[in-house]
Amino acid sequence: MSTAGVPFVKGHGTENDFILLPDAADTLEVTGSQVRALCDRRAGLGADGVIRVAPARSGAHFFMDYRNADGSLAEMCGNGARVFARFLVDAGWERNGSFDFATRGGLCAAAVDSQSDISIAMGSATLGRTSEAVLAGTAYVGTAVDVGNPHLVCMVSSADLLDDLDLTTAPLVDVALFPTGVNVEFVVPLPDGHSCTDGNGHIRMRVFERGVGETRSCGTGTIAAAAAFLATKGSALGRVTVHVPGGSVLVEVSASGAILTGPAVMVAAGVIDPQFWAQHR
Amino acid sequence: MSTAGVPFVKGHGTENDFILLPDAADTLEVTGSQVRALCDRRAGLGADGVIRVAPARSGAHFFMDYRNADGSLAEMCGNGARVFARFLVDAGWERNGSFDFATRGGLCAAAVDSQSDISIAMGSATLGRTSEAVLAGTAYVGTAVDVGNPHLVCMVSSADLLDDLDLTTAPLVDVALFPTGVNVEFVVPLPDGHSCTDGNGHIRMRVFERGVGETRSCGTGTIAAAAAFLATKGSALGRVTVHVPGGSVLVEVSASGAILTGPAVMVAAGVIDPQFWAQHR
Repeated sequence: MSTAGVPFVKGHGTENDFILLPDAADTLEVTGSQVRALCDRRAGLGADGVIRVAPARSGAHFFMDYRNADGSLAEMCGNGARVFARFLVDAGWERNGSFDFATRGGLCAAAVDSQSDISIAMGSATLGRTSEAVLAGTAYVGTAVDVGNPHLVCMVSSADLLDDLDLTTAPLVDVALFPTGVNVEFVVPLPDGHSCTDGNGHIRMRVFERGVGETRSCGTGTIAAAAAFLATKGSALGRVTVHVPGGSVLVEVSASGAILTGPAVMVAAGVIDPQFWAQHR
Repeated sequence: MSTAGVPFVKGHGTENDFILLPDAADTLEVTGSQVRALCDRRAGLGADGVIRVAPARSGAHFFMDYRNADGSLAEMCGNGARVFARFLVDAGWERNGSFDFATRGGLCAAAVDSQSDISIAMGSATLGRTSEAVLAGTAYVGTAVDVGNPHLVCMVSSADLLDDLDLTTAPLVDVALFPTGVNVEFVVPLPDGHSCTDGNGHIRMRVFERGVGETRSCGTGTIAAAAAFLATKGSALGRVTVHVPGGSVLVEVSASGAILTGPAVMVAAGVIDPQFWAQHR
Protein backbone atom coordinates (compact mmCIF):
# COMPACT_ATOMS: atom_id res chain seq x y z
CA MET A 1 0.00 0.00 0.00
CA SER A 2 2.70 2.48 0.95
CA THR A 3 4.54 2.38 -2.36
CA ALA A 4 1.32 2.80 -4.36
CA GLY A 5 -0.04 5.58 -2.16
CA VAL A 6 -2.89 5.63 0.35
CA PRO A 7 -6.34 5.90 -1.30
CA PHE A 8 -8.55 8.85 -0.28
CA VAL A 9 -11.91 10.42 -1.08
CA LYS A 10 -12.72 14.07 -0.41
CA GLY A 11 -16.22 15.40 0.14
CA HIS A 12 -18.23 17.92 2.15
CA GLY A 13 -21.55 18.33 3.94
CA THR A 14 -22.78 21.94 3.94
CA GLU A 15 -19.12 22.93 3.49
CA ASN A 16 -17.72 21.00 6.43
CA ASP A 17 -15.12 19.06 4.46
CA PHE A 18 -13.51 15.70 5.12
CA ILE A 19 -10.85 13.39 3.78
CA LEU A 20 -12.00 9.76 3.90
CA LEU A 21 -9.40 6.99 4.02
CA PRO A 22 -11.07 3.73 2.93
CA ASP A 23 -9.50 0.92 4.94
CA ALA A 24 -11.60 -2.22 4.59
CA ALA A 25 -8.59 -4.35 5.58
CA ASP A 26 -8.19 -2.38 8.83
CA THR A 27 -4.44 -2.15 8.27
CA LEU A 28 -3.92 1.60 7.88
CA GLU A 29 -2.13 3.33 10.72
CA VAL A 30 -2.81 7.06 10.71
CA THR A 31 -0.72 9.31 12.93
CA GLY A 32 -1.77 12.67 14.31
CA SER A 33 1.01 14.18 12.23
CA GLN A 34 -0.43 12.67 9.05
CA VAL A 35 -3.91 13.99 9.92
CA ARG A 36 -2.53 17.49 10.48
CA ALA A 37 -0.51 17.33 7.23
CA LEU A 38 -3.51 16.12 5.19
CA CYS A 39 -5.82 18.78 6.67
CA ASP A 40 -3.36 21.64 6.10
CA ARG A 41 -5.14 23.85 3.55
CA ARG A 42 -1.93 25.02 1.81
CA ALA A 43 0.63 22.25 2.25
CA GLY A 44 -1.85 19.33 2.24
CA LEU A 45 -5.22 18.45 0.76
CA GLY A 46 -7.14 20.58 3.26
CA ALA A 47 -10.11 19.48 5.37
CA ASP A 48 -11.90 19.92 8.69
CA GLY A 49 -11.19 16.31 9.60
CA VAL A 50 -10.08 12.85 8.51
CA ILE A 51 -12.36 9.80 8.61
CA ARG A 52 -10.82 6.35 8.30
CA VAL A 53 -13.48 3.97 6.96
CA ALA A 54 -12.76 0.81 8.89
CA PRO A 55 -14.57 -2.46 9.63
CA ALA A 56 -16.66 -2.31 12.82
CA ARG A 57 -15.91 -4.74 15.63
CA SER A 58 -19.60 -5.43 16.32
CA GLY A 59 -23.14 -4.20 15.71
CA ALA A 60 -22.50 -2.72 12.27
CA HIS A 61 -20.38 -3.30 9.20
CA PHE A 62 -18.29 -0.13 9.35
CA PHE A 63 -16.68 2.16 11.89
CA MET A 64 -16.36 5.94 11.43
CA ASP A 65 -12.84 6.52 12.78
CA TYR A 66 -13.00 10.32 13.00
CA ARG A 67 -10.18 12.73 13.82
CA ASN A 68 -10.25 16.50 13.99
CA ALA A 69 -7.89 18.55 11.84
CA ASP A 70 -5.57 18.96 14.84
CA GLY A 71 -5.09 15.17 14.95
CA SER A 72 -7.23 14.59 18.06
CA LEU A 73 -9.79 11.77 18.17
CA ALA A 74 -13.47 12.73 18.17
CA GLU A 75 -16.64 10.80 18.85
CA MET A 76 -18.85 11.89 15.99
CA CYS A 77 -19.55 14.68 13.52
CA GLY A 78 -23.02 15.07 12.01
CA ASN A 79 -21.90 16.62 8.72
CA GLY A 80 -19.02 14.15 8.41
CA ALA A 81 -21.37 11.24 9.05
CA ARG A 82 -23.34 12.10 5.89
CA VAL A 83 -20.18 12.09 3.78
CA PHE A 84 -19.16 8.80 5.42
CA ALA A 85 -22.58 7.23 4.68
CA ARG A 86 -22.58 8.53 1.11
CA PHE A 87 -19.16 6.99 0.56
CA LEU A 88 -20.30 3.58 1.86
CA VAL A 89 -23.16 3.51 -0.65
CA ASP A 90 -21.15 4.97 -3.56
CA ALA A 91 -18.43 2.38 -2.96
CA GLY A 92 -20.97 -0.44 -2.83
CA TRP A 93 -19.99 -1.28 0.76
CA GLU A 94 -23.55 -0.64 1.95
CA ARG A 95 -26.79 -0.65 -0.02
CA ASN A 96 -29.09 2.31 -0.55
CA GLY A 97 -31.55 2.50 2.33
CA SER A 98 -31.08 2.29 6.08
CA PHE A 99 -28.06 0.93 7.89
CA ASP A 100 -26.20 1.42 11.14
CA PHE A 101 -22.55 2.33 11.50
CA ALA A 102 -20.29 2.49 14.53
CA THR A 103 -18.72 5.64 15.99
CA ARG A 104 -16.76 6.32 19.18
CA GLY A 105 -20.06 7.69 20.51
CA GLY A 106 -21.94 4.45 19.80
CA LEU A 107 -24.03 3.11 16.94
CA CYS A 108 -25.55 5.58 14.52
CA ALA A 109 -28.46 5.04 12.09
CA ALA A 110 -28.17 6.36 8.53
CA ALA A 111 -30.71 6.55 5.71
CA VAL A 112 -29.25 7.04 2.24
CA ASP A 113 -31.18 7.34 -0.99
CA SER A 114 -29.24 7.54 -4.20
CA GLN A 115 -28.71 11.14 -5.38
CA SER A 116 -30.64 12.76 -2.54
CA ASP A 117 -30.01 14.06 0.95
CA ILE A 118 -28.84 11.75 3.71
CA SER A 119 -30.36 11.35 7.18
CA ILE A 120 -28.42 10.60 10.35
CA ALA A 121 -29.98 9.88 13.76
CA MET A 122 -28.19 12.20 16.15
CA GLY A 123 -29.64 11.58 19.61
CA SER A 124 -31.54 14.07 21.75
CA ALA A 125 -31.23 17.76 22.55
CA THR A 126 -31.75 18.77 26.18
CA LEU A 127 -32.62 22.37 26.92
CA GLY A 128 -30.97 23.95 29.95
CA ARG A 129 -30.97 27.31 31.65
CA THR A 130 -30.92 30.80 30.18
CA SER A 131 -27.54 32.47 29.88
CA GLU A 132 -25.95 35.06 27.63
CA ALA A 133 -23.16 35.60 25.12
CA VAL A 134 -21.41 38.96 24.92
CA LEU A 135 -20.10 40.13 21.58
CA ALA A 136 -18.43 43.53 21.15
CA GLY A 137 -20.00 44.73 24.39
CA THR A 138 -23.52 43.64 23.47
CA ALA A 139 -25.20 40.84 25.47
CA TYR A 140 -27.36 38.30 23.62
CA VAL A 141 -29.71 36.19 25.72
CA GLY A 142 -29.52 32.50 24.92
CA THR A 143 -30.57 29.03 26.00
CA ALA A 144 -28.07 26.34 26.93
CA VAL A 145 -28.66 23.14 24.92
CA ASP A 146 -26.86 19.83 25.44
CA VAL A 147 -26.57 17.69 22.28
CA GLY A 148 -23.82 15.48 23.68
CA ASN A 149 -21.70 18.62 23.45
CA PRO A 150 -22.56 22.04 24.90
CA HIS A 151 -24.32 24.80 22.96
CA LEU A 152 -25.72 28.24 23.72
CA VAL A 153 -28.42 29.31 21.26
CA CYS A 154 -29.07 33.06 21.10
CA MET A 155 -32.07 34.36 19.17
CA VAL A 156 -31.32 37.70 17.47
CA SER A 157 -33.97 40.18 16.42
CA SER A 158 -33.32 40.65 12.70
CA ALA A 159 -31.55 39.18 9.69
CA ASP A 160 -29.53 42.39 9.32
CA LEU A 161 -28.30 42.06 12.87
CA LEU A 162 -27.33 38.42 12.21
CA ASP A 163 -25.40 39.44 9.08
CA ASP A 164 -23.59 42.21 10.92
CA LEU A 165 -22.34 40.13 13.87
CA ASP A 166 -18.55 40.13 14.09
CA LEU A 167 -17.64 36.51 14.87
CA THR A 168 -13.91 36.94 14.29
CA THR A 169 -13.48 36.82 18.06
CA ALA A 170 -15.04 34.42 20.55
CA PRO A 171 -18.25 35.49 22.30
CA LEU A 172 -17.79 35.87 26.07
CA VAL A 173 -19.86 33.33 28.02
CA ASP A 174 -20.48 32.23 31.63
CA VAL A 175 -17.46 30.04 32.36
CA ALA A 176 -19.13 28.64 35.49
CA LEU A 177 -21.97 27.28 33.35
CA PHE A 178 -19.65 26.18 30.49
CA PRO A 179 -16.38 25.12 32.14
CA THR A 180 -15.10 23.37 28.96
CA GLY A 181 -16.32 26.07 26.61
CA VAL A 182 -19.43 26.18 24.46
CA ASN A 183 -20.46 26.43 20.83
CA VAL A 184 -22.52 29.59 20.37
CA GLU A 185 -25.29 29.76 17.77
CA PHE A 186 -26.94 33.02 16.70
CA VAL A 187 -30.33 32.40 15.16
CA VAL A 188 -33.06 34.42 13.48
CA PRO A 189 -36.39 32.93 12.31
CA LEU A 190 -37.19 33.54 8.66
CA PRO A 191 -40.18 35.88 8.49
CA ASP A 192 -43.67 34.46 8.04
CA GLY A 193 -44.59 34.43 4.38
CA HIS A 194 -41.08 33.64 3.12
CA SER A 195 -40.96 31.54 -0.01
CA CYS A 196 -40.85 28.06 1.60
CA THR A 197 -44.21 26.30 1.88
CA ASP A 198 -43.06 22.95 3.27
CA GLY A 199 -44.69 23.46 6.68
CA ASN A 200 -41.31 23.39 8.43
CA GLY A 201 -40.05 26.10 10.67
CA HIS A 202 -37.21 27.99 8.93
CA ILE A 203 -34.35 29.66 10.71
CA ARG A 204 -31.01 31.17 9.72
CA MET A 205 -28.00 30.39 11.89
CA ARG A 206 -24.39 31.46 12.29
CA VAL A 207 -22.14 29.53 14.65
CA PHE A 208 -18.94 30.12 16.58
CA GLU A 209 -17.41 26.70 17.36
CA ARG A 210 -15.32 26.50 20.51
CA GLY A 211 -11.64 26.22 19.71
CA VAL A 212 -12.23 26.82 16.00
CA GLY A 213 -14.04 30.09 15.28
CA GLU A 214 -16.91 30.80 12.92
CA THR A 215 -17.59 27.83 10.63
CA ARG A 216 -19.77 27.26 7.57
CA SER A 217 -21.90 24.71 9.41
CA CYS A 218 -22.12 22.66 12.62
CA GLY A 219 -24.31 19.55 12.75
CA THR A 220 -25.00 19.43 16.48
CA GLY A 221 -25.36 23.24 16.41
CA THR A 222 -28.24 23.00 13.94
CA ILE A 223 -30.00 20.52 16.25
CA ALA A 224 -29.49 22.78 19.27
CA ALA A 225 -30.78 25.76 17.28
CA ALA A 226 -33.84 23.86 16.05
CA ALA A 227 -34.71 22.67 19.57
CA ALA A 228 -34.31 26.16 21.04
CA PHE A 229 -36.39 27.66 18.23
CA LEU A 230 -39.19 25.11 18.71
CA ALA A 231 -39.20 25.95 22.44
CA THR A 232 -39.87 29.61 21.63
CA LYS A 233 -42.99 28.35 19.82
CA GLY A 234 -44.00 26.29 22.85
CA SER A 235 -43.12 23.03 21.07
CA ALA A 236 -40.77 20.26 22.09
CA LEU A 237 -41.11 18.45 18.75
CA GLY A 238 -41.21 19.51 15.10
CA ARG A 239 -39.38 20.00 11.83
CA VAL A 240 -37.03 22.94 11.30
CA THR A 241 -34.98 23.81 8.23
CA VAL A 242 -31.75 25.45 9.33
CA HIS A 243 -30.03 27.71 6.80
CA VAL A 244 -26.30 27.97 7.55
CA PRO A 245 -23.60 29.76 5.51
CA GLY A 246 -22.64 26.42 3.89
CA GLY A 247 -26.15 25.37 2.85
CA SER A 248 -29.32 24.05 4.48
CA VAL A 249 -30.17 21.04 6.61
CA LEU A 250 -33.45 19.68 8.00
CA VAL A 251 -33.71 18.88 11.71
CA GLU A 252 -36.60 16.66 12.81
CA VAL A 253 -37.00 16.62 16.59
CA SER A 254 -39.09 13.65 17.76
CA ALA A 255 -39.61 11.92 21.10
CA SER A 256 -36.91 9.39 20.19
CA GLY A 257 -34.27 11.99 19.26
CA ALA A 258 -33.24 14.30 16.45
CA ILE A 259 -32.63 13.35 12.84
CA LEU A 260 -30.32 15.54 10.77
CA THR A 261 -30.87 15.46 7.00
CA GLY A 262 -28.69 17.21 4.47
CA PRO A 263 -26.45 16.93 1.43
CA ALA A 264 -23.15 15.11 1.03
CA VAL A 265 -21.09 16.17 -1.98
CA MET A 266 -18.22 14.06 -3.29
CA VAL A 267 -15.45 16.19 -4.79
CA ALA A 268 -12.55 13.92 -5.76
CA ALA A 269 -10.89 10.57 -5.15
CA GLY A 270 -7.35 9.33 -5.60
CA VAL A 271 -4.19 8.42 -3.77
CA ILE A 272 -1.98 10.38 -1.40
CA ASP A 273 1.58 10.74 -2.64
CA PRO A 274 3.64 7.96 -0.98
CA GLN A 275 6.54 10.30 -0.23
CA PHE A 276 4.20 12.88 1.35
CA TRP A 277 2.58 10.16 3.47
CA ALA A 278 5.92 8.71 4.59
CA GLN A 279 7.40 12.12 5.44
CA HIS A 280 4.59 12.89 7.87
CA ARG A 281 4.58 9.52 9.65
CA MET B 1 -13.31 11.28 -19.88
CA SER B 2 -16.34 12.92 -18.29
CA THR B 3 -17.91 9.69 -17.03
CA ALA B 4 -14.62 8.48 -15.53
CA GLY B 5 -13.76 11.82 -13.93
CA VAL B 6 -11.11 14.39 -14.82
CA PRO B 7 -7.61 13.42 -13.60
CA PHE B 8 -5.83 15.87 -11.29
CA VAL B 9 -2.62 16.22 -9.30
CA LYS B 10 -2.26 18.52 -6.29
CA GLY B 11 1.03 19.99 -5.13
CA HIS B 12 2.59 23.10 -3.65
CA GLY B 13 5.71 25.25 -3.86
CA THR B 14 6.52 26.97 -0.54
CA GLU B 15 2.80 26.58 0.29
CA ASN B 16 1.46 28.22 -2.85
CA ASP B 17 -0.78 25.32 -3.87
CA PHE B 18 -2.04 24.25 -7.27
CA ILE B 19 -4.33 21.74 -8.91
CA LEU B 20 -2.79 20.38 -12.11
CA LEU B 21 -5.06 18.98 -14.81
CA PRO B 22 -2.96 16.75 -17.11
CA ASP B 23 -4.35 17.14 -20.62
CA ALA B 24 -1.88 15.68 -23.12
CA ALA B 25 -4.68 15.28 -25.67
CA ASP B 26 -5.54 19.02 -25.41
CA THR B 27 -9.24 18.20 -25.20
CA LEU B 28 -10.16 19.42 -21.72
CA GLU B 29 -12.33 22.51 -21.58
CA VAL B 30 -12.07 24.22 -18.21
CA THR B 31 -14.55 26.96 -17.35
CA GLY B 32 -13.98 29.79 -14.90
CA SER B 33 -16.77 28.31 -12.82
CA GLN B 34 -14.94 24.96 -12.64
CA VAL B 35 -11.71 26.69 -11.60
CA ARG B 36 -13.50 28.58 -8.83
CA ALA B 37 -15.26 25.40 -7.66
CA LEU B 38 -12.01 23.39 -7.60
CA CYS B 39 -10.11 26.13 -5.76
CA ASP B 40 -12.83 26.61 -3.11
CA ARG B 41 -11.15 25.51 0.13
CA ARG B 42 -14.33 24.11 1.73
CA ALA B 43 -16.60 23.00 -1.12
CA GLY B 44 -13.82 21.97 -3.53
CA LEU B 45 -10.26 20.65 -3.42
CA GLY B 46 -8.77 24.02 -2.52
CA ALA B 47 -5.86 25.77 -4.25
CA ASP B 48 -4.36 29.11 -5.22
CA GLY B 49 -4.72 28.25 -8.89
CA VAL B 50 -5.36 25.62 -11.57
CA ILE B 51 -2.76 24.62 -14.17
CA ARG B 52 -3.88 22.66 -17.21
CA VAL B 53 -0.87 20.71 -18.54
CA ALA B 54 -1.37 20.96 -22.30
CA PRO B 55 0.74 20.38 -25.40
CA ALA B 56 2.58 23.53 -26.54
CA ARG B 57 1.92 24.87 -30.03
CA SER B 58 5.61 25.59 -30.71
CA GLY B 59 9.03 26.00 -29.09
CA ALA B 60 8.45 23.51 -26.26
CA HIS B 61 6.64 20.28 -25.56
CA PHE B 62 4.19 21.58 -22.95
CA PHE B 63 2.15 24.67 -22.15
CA MET B 64 1.44 25.88 -18.60
CA ASP B 65 -2.20 26.95 -18.93
CA TYR B 66 -2.48 28.84 -15.64
CA ARG B 67 -5.60 30.30 -14.06
CA ASN B 68 -5.97 32.14 -10.78
CA ALA B 69 -8.39 30.86 -8.13
CA ASP B 70 -10.95 33.46 -9.28
CA GLY B 71 -10.99 31.85 -12.75
CA SER B 72 -9.02 34.58 -14.50
CA LEU B 73 -6.17 33.71 -16.90
CA ALA B 74 -2.64 34.57 -15.79
CA GLU B 75 0.68 34.66 -17.58
CA MET B 76 2.95 32.84 -15.18
CA CYS B 77 3.50 31.96 -11.55
CA GLY B 78 6.99 31.17 -10.27
CA ASN B 79 5.93 28.78 -7.49
CA GLY B 80 3.38 27.10 -9.75
CA ALA B 81 6.01 26.65 -12.46
CA ARG B 82 8.06 24.44 -10.14
CA VAL B 83 5.09 22.21 -9.41
CA PHE B 84 4.34 22.11 -13.16
CA ALA B 85 7.95 21.15 -13.99
CA ARG B 86 8.04 18.54 -11.22
CA PHE B 87 4.86 16.97 -12.59
CA LEU B 88 6.29 16.77 -16.13
CA VAL B 89 9.31 14.83 -14.88
CA ASP B 90 7.36 12.64 -12.41
CA ALA B 91 4.91 11.73 -15.17
CA GLY B 92 7.74 10.90 -17.57
CA TRP B 93 6.60 13.63 -19.98
CA GLU B 94 9.99 15.38 -19.71
CA ARG B 95 13.34 13.97 -18.61
CA ASN B 96 15.31 15.06 -15.59
CA GLY B 97 17.53 17.98 -16.50
CA SER B 98 16.84 21.18 -18.43
CA PHE B 99 13.85 21.85 -20.66
CA ASP B 100 11.73 24.75 -21.80
CA PHE B 101 7.99 25.06 -21.40
CA ALA B 102 5.53 27.56 -22.78
CA THR B 103 3.52 30.08 -20.75
CA ARG B 104 1.27 33.00 -21.71
CA GLY B 105 4.29 35.17 -20.87
CA GLY B 106 6.57 33.31 -23.30
CA LEU B 107 9.00 30.41 -23.07
CA CYS B 108 10.41 29.52 -19.66
CA ALA B 109 13.52 27.45 -18.86
CA ALA B 110 13.33 24.83 -16.09
CA ALA B 111 16.02 22.69 -14.49
CA VAL B 112 14.76 19.64 -12.60
CA ASP B 113 16.86 17.13 -10.77
CA SER B 114 15.16 14.11 -9.30
CA GLN B 115 14.30 14.59 -5.58
CA SER B 116 15.83 18.05 -5.27
CA ASP B 117 14.81 21.66 -5.71
CA ILE B 118 13.71 22.96 -9.10
CA SER B 119 15.02 26.07 -10.88
CA ILE B 120 12.96 28.34 -13.10
CA ALA B 121 14.35 31.24 -15.17
CA MET B 122 12.15 34.19 -14.31
CA GLY B 123 13.44 37.18 -16.31
CA SER B 124 14.86 40.38 -14.90
CA ALA B 125 14.07 42.67 -11.99
CA THR B 126 14.19 46.42 -12.70
CA LEU B 127 14.59 48.76 -9.75
CA GLY B 128 12.57 51.96 -9.81
CA ARG B 129 12.05 54.92 -7.59
CA THR B 130 11.70 55.16 -3.83
CA SER B 131 8.17 55.24 -2.45
CA GLU B 132 6.45 54.18 0.75
CA ALA B 133 3.80 51.85 2.17
CA VAL B 134 1.69 52.95 5.12
CA LEU B 135 0.49 50.33 7.57
CA ALA B 136 -1.52 51.24 10.67
CA GLY B 137 -0.34 54.84 10.40
CA THR B 138 3.35 53.95 10.10
CA ALA B 139 5.18 54.71 6.83
CA TYR B 140 7.76 52.19 5.55
CA VAL B 141 10.18 53.40 2.90
CA GLY B 142 10.48 51.07 -0.05
CA THR B 143 11.85 50.60 -3.55
CA ALA B 144 9.62 49.98 -6.55
CA VAL B 145 10.73 46.86 -8.45
CA ASP B 146 9.30 45.64 -11.76
CA VAL B 147 9.48 41.86 -12.27
CA GLY B 148 6.91 41.83 -15.06
CA ASN B 149 4.45 42.76 -12.32
CA PRO B 150 4.81 45.65 -9.86
CA HIS B 151 6.37 45.34 -6.41
CA LEU B 152 7.29 47.68 -3.58
CA VAL B 153 10.03 46.28 -1.33
CA CYS B 154 10.25 47.85 2.13
CA MET B 155 13.21 47.04 4.37
CA VAL B 156 12.21 46.92 8.03
CA SER B 157 14.62 47.35 10.92
CA SER B 158 14.18 44.17 12.96
CA ALA B 159 12.81 40.63 12.87
CA ASP B 160 10.45 41.48 15.75
CA LEU B 161 9.01 44.37 13.77
CA LEU B 162 8.53 42.06 10.77
CA ASP B 163 6.73 39.49 12.92
CA ASP B 164 4.47 42.13 14.45
CA LEU B 165 3.28 43.72 11.18
CA ASP B 166 -0.49 43.49 10.82
CA LEU B 167 -1.03 42.48 7.18
CA THR B 168 -4.73 41.72 7.56
CA THR B 169 -5.43 44.98 5.72
CA ALA B 170 -3.78 46.31 2.57
CA PRO B 171 -0.85 48.72 2.97
CA LEU B 172 -1.61 52.20 1.60
CA VAL B 173 0.59 53.07 -1.41
CA ASP B 174 1.09 55.87 -3.96
CA VAL B 175 -1.71 55.21 -6.45
CA ALA B 176 -0.11 57.57 -8.99
CA LEU B 177 3.02 55.38 -9.02
CA PHE B 178 1.05 52.11 -8.88
CA PRO B 179 -2.19 52.73 -10.82
CA THR B 180 -3.02 48.98 -11.05
CA GLY B 181 -1.97 48.22 -7.47
CA VAL B 182 1.25 46.72 -6.20
CA ASN B 183 2.51 43.71 -4.28
CA VAL B 184 4.21 44.92 -1.10
CA GLU B 185 7.12 43.00 0.42
CA PHE B 186 8.45 43.66 3.92
CA VAL B 187 12.00 42.42 4.30
CA VAL B 188 14.59 42.11 7.04
CA PRO B 189 18.15 40.79 6.48
CA LEU B 190 19.16 37.91 8.71
CA PRO B 191 21.86 39.13 11.09
CA ASP B 192 25.52 38.50 10.28
CA GLY B 193 26.66 35.35 12.00
CA HIS B 194 23.37 33.45 11.55
CA SER B 195 23.72 29.73 11.07
CA CYS B 196 23.93 29.64 7.26
CA THR B 197 27.44 29.49 5.80
CA ASP B 198 26.59 29.13 2.11
CA GLY B 199 27.88 32.58 1.15
CA ASN B 200 24.41 33.72 0.06
CA GLY B 201 22.67 36.76 1.38
CA HIS B 202 19.77 35.72 3.63
CA ILE B 203 16.61 37.70 4.14
CA ARG B 204 13.20 37.11 5.68
CA MET B 205 10.14 38.35 3.80
CA ARG B 206 6.41 38.75 4.31
CA VAL B 207 4.24 39.77 1.38
CA PHE B 208 0.87 41.36 0.80
CA GLU B 209 -0.29 40.37 -2.71
CA ARG B 210 -2.56 42.85 -4.46
CA GLY B 211 -6.14 41.62 -4.59
CA VAL B 212 -5.34 38.63 -2.36
CA GLY B 213 -3.89 39.62 1.01
CA GLU B 214 -0.96 38.16 2.91
CA THR B 215 0.23 34.91 1.34
CA ARG B 216 2.66 32.17 2.36
CA SER B 217 4.95 32.96 -0.59
CA CYS B 218 5.17 34.94 -3.83
CA GLY B 219 7.70 33.93 -6.51
CA THR B 220 8.13 37.30 -8.23
CA GLY B 221 8.06 38.95 -4.79
CA THR B 222 11.11 36.97 -3.69
CA ILE B 223 12.97 38.14 -6.80
CA ALA B 224 11.99 41.76 -6.18
CA ALA B 225 13.07 41.45 -2.54
CA ALA B 226 16.41 39.88 -3.47
CA ALA B 227 17.16 42.59 -6.05
CA ALA B 228 16.26 45.39 -3.63
CA PHE B 229 18.33 43.77 -0.87
CA LEU B 230 21.36 43.40 -3.17
CA ALA B 231 21.02 47.09 -4.09
CA THR B 232 21.31 48.04 -0.40
CA LYS B 233 24.68 46.24 -0.49
CA GLY B 234 25.74 48.15 -3.60
CA SER B 235 25.35 45.03 -5.78
CA ALA B 236 23.27 44.44 -8.87
CA LEU B 237 24.07 40.71 -8.97
CA GLY B 238 24.27 37.95 -6.38
CA ARG B 239 22.64 35.03 -4.61
CA VAL B 240 20.01 35.58 -1.93
CA THR B 241 18.09 33.00 0.07
CA VAL B 242 14.62 34.33 0.81
CA HIS B 243 12.83 32.86 3.83
CA VAL B 244 9.06 33.23 3.46
CA PRO B 245 6.33 31.88 5.79
CA GLY B 246 5.87 28.87 3.47
CA GLY B 247 9.55 27.88 3.25
CA SER B 248 12.72 29.12 1.56
CA VAL B 249 13.77 29.80 -2.01
CA LEU B 250 17.07 30.79 -3.61
CA VAL B 251 17.17 33.79 -5.96
CA GLU B 252 20.20 34.13 -8.22
CA VAL B 253 20.34 37.52 -9.93
CA SER B 254 22.67 37.50 -12.93
CA ALA B 255 23.17 39.76 -15.94
CA SER B 256 20.84 37.57 -17.99
CA GLY B 257 18.01 37.57 -15.46
CA ALA B 258 16.90 35.96 -12.23
CA ILE B 259 16.66 32.24 -11.49
CA LEU B 260 14.27 31.10 -8.77
CA THR B 261 15.08 27.77 -7.12
CA GLY B 262 12.90 26.03 -4.57
CA PRO B 263 10.91 22.95 -3.63
CA ALA B 264 7.88 21.42 -5.29
CA VAL B 265 5.91 18.98 -3.15
CA MET B 266 3.38 16.56 -4.63
CA VAL B 267 0.51 15.84 -2.24
CA ALA B 268 -2.03 13.65 -4.03
CA ALA B 269 -3.36 12.54 -7.41
CA GLY B 270 -6.70 11.20 -8.54
CA VAL B 271 -9.85 12.08 -10.41
CA ILE B 272 -12.42 14.81 -9.86
CA ASP B 273 -15.92 13.47 -9.22
CA PRO B 274 -17.75 13.50 -12.60
CA GLN B 275 -20.94 14.87 -11.05
CA PHE B 276 -19.02 17.67 -9.30
CA TRP B 277 -17.26 18.55 -12.56
CA ALA B 278 -20.49 18.55 -14.58
CA GLN B 279 -22.41 20.63 -12.04
CA HIS B 280 -19.86 23.45 -12.25
CA ARG B 281 -19.60 23.55 -16.03
